[in-house]
Amino acid sequence: MKFTDWSTYIQQRTETALQAILPAADLAPDRLHEAMRYAALGGGKRVRALLVHAAGGLTHACPEQLDRAACAVELIHAYSLVHDDMPCMDNDNLRRGKPTVHVEYDEATALLVGDALQTLAFQAMSETSVSATAAGQLEAIRLLATAAGSHGMAGGQAIDIASAGREMTREELEFMHLRKTGALIRAAVLIGGHAGEGVTDERQRCLDHYAKRIGLLYQVVDDILDVGADTVTLGKTAGKDASHNKPTYVSLLGLSDARRFAEELLAQAHTALRPLGGRGARLAELADFIAHRAF
Amino acid sequence: MKFTDWSTYIQQRTETALQAILPAADLAPDRLHEAMRYAALGGGKRVRALLVHAAGGLTHACPEQLDRAACAVELIHAYSLVHDDMPCMDNDNLRRGKPTVHVEYDEATALLVGDALQTLAFQAMSETSVSATAAGQLEAIRLLATAAGSHGMAGGQAIDIASAGREMTREELEFMHLRKTGALIRAAVLIGGHAGEGVTDERQRCLDHYAKRIGLLYQVVDDILDVGADTVTLGKTAGKDASHNKPTYVSLLGLSDARRFAEELLAQAHTALRPLGGRGARLAELADFIAHRAF
Repeated sequence: MKFTDWSTYIQQRTETALQAILPAADLAPDRLHEAMRYAALGGGKRVRALLVHAAGGLTHACPEQLDRAACAVELIHAYSLVHDDMPCMDNDNLRRGKPTVHVEYDEATALLVGDALQTLAFQAMSETSVSATAAGQLEAIRLLATAAGSHGMAGGQAIDIASAGREMTREELEFMHLRKTGALIRAAVLIGGHAGEGVTDERQRCLDHYAKRIGLLYQVVDDILDVGADTVTLGKTAGKDASHNKPTYVSLLGLSDARRFAEELLAQAHTALRPLGGRGARLAELADFIAHRAF
Repeated sequence: MKFTDWSTYIQQRTETALQAILPAADLAPDRLHEAMRYAALGGGKRVRALLVHAAGGLTHACPEQLDRAACAVELIHAYSLVHDDMPCMDNDNLRRGKPTVHVEYDEATALLVGDALQTLAFQAMSETSVSATAAGQLEAIRLLATAAGSHGMAGGQAIDIASAGREMTREELEFMHLRKTGALIRAAVLIGGHAGEGVTDERQRCLDHYAKRIGLLYQVVDDILDVGADTVTLGKTAGKDASHNKPTYVSLLGLSDARRFAEELLAQAHTALRPLGGRGARLAELADFIAHRAF
């Protein structure tokens, strides 16, 4: 299957699976449930879901189990966006081309939506199988929790809000982004790679190396897009890092060096997949897909 | 061991276990980690931890596994307090006799502290064993997630914020409290009951019935205390339900009928434990302990 057909197919599968996992909007408390669906459905490129499925393909994992795991990762991502957009954080009013949750509903609802989406991710990972074995399923939950917590995504966000108005070294910027964006992308790859049978340490190491490169690549591309695209194209407020005076790869390296760094990361991601041979083709295409937005 | 000695012993064990599970305050991002420890350590009666251990005692579960599970439930509870106290929710500035997290730190930090404490609960439940089998551990995670989410604690909180200034029937009040407070208390009992060997459906049904009664009892007692005690005794702002014009058992039934209802719930909790014989003694004492605060 061509990459564009495959990615559309997985995006649609993920949307259908999320529809089923999210509580119905007419179940009490209905305003909360409606807002959870508003936040999690109908948007985004579902890069993390694509990564779960692409890595899961390596071990011939059950597609329905990958759907559950992909939804869980997307729910964590969705919760983080809802909370990051709130007035006490980035105070943004546009996300995926729609008003953010606290604008469409209210702040208290946005807070609870984020909280409940996070919980739902762990419910989805625990109530039905997402792996060939119970031990594998526990490992998947552990990977997701470690990636989302204070040593991962939430920690990266804490560094991000503290960074406004101050300079960062390249090492500090990488430390932040490996957590803020990279940790969950890495978890998506490792959870997919862990889902099927015959998981080997060597292959997980390949995937880990690949995942770290594309996690950083994703952020460099985001920084490039933030200065280069307009708000309509992005579906979120453009230029907001500059307006919040936050350090980015573009502010640190300049635009052309940031592009060059993205190219390097892309090449390293391809190299990391080499031991997998032809079976890593989908993951290689995904790396190109992430990079492509910036070129 | 006498109940007071036992409860002090379990409270101390829980504090020690939480100390170990929470990230060190000097690990980056240190402000977030310091605030997580501020929110989760050194306070509270640890009722949920006591319930995990008391129910776990029925199946001779491993005490160290019960510590992990007890910490996870307490971390979910702690996260909910941090978020509930925020300005967009109850806007409270005192908790366990200390300034709330958003007052001591700032709102963005409080948001991330709650997020990261929730994640840490699921990390604690997945990274080391909390049950005799992997299947039991997955069931424990499922119980915790279901209790914390939009059909449980977060859902109850959503109903609570929507209730300010409007009347509720007794059924609506019970619907709300079974979720807001009851769900996590029920999960604490069921997770404890599930931790060891030889779990039977019949015993879990006894525990479930007991847990629902004490969950509601806890809330009725809270409502009674909210009108009867002062801020220093409570360690949180007294009379805040009345000042937010929120329905409570006291506002609905009056103080003496609310007390009578608490007595009924306590008697029902004791009845639910009868099939367990003498082995339910610790749980019976815990019901008395919860009720005692109101009499």
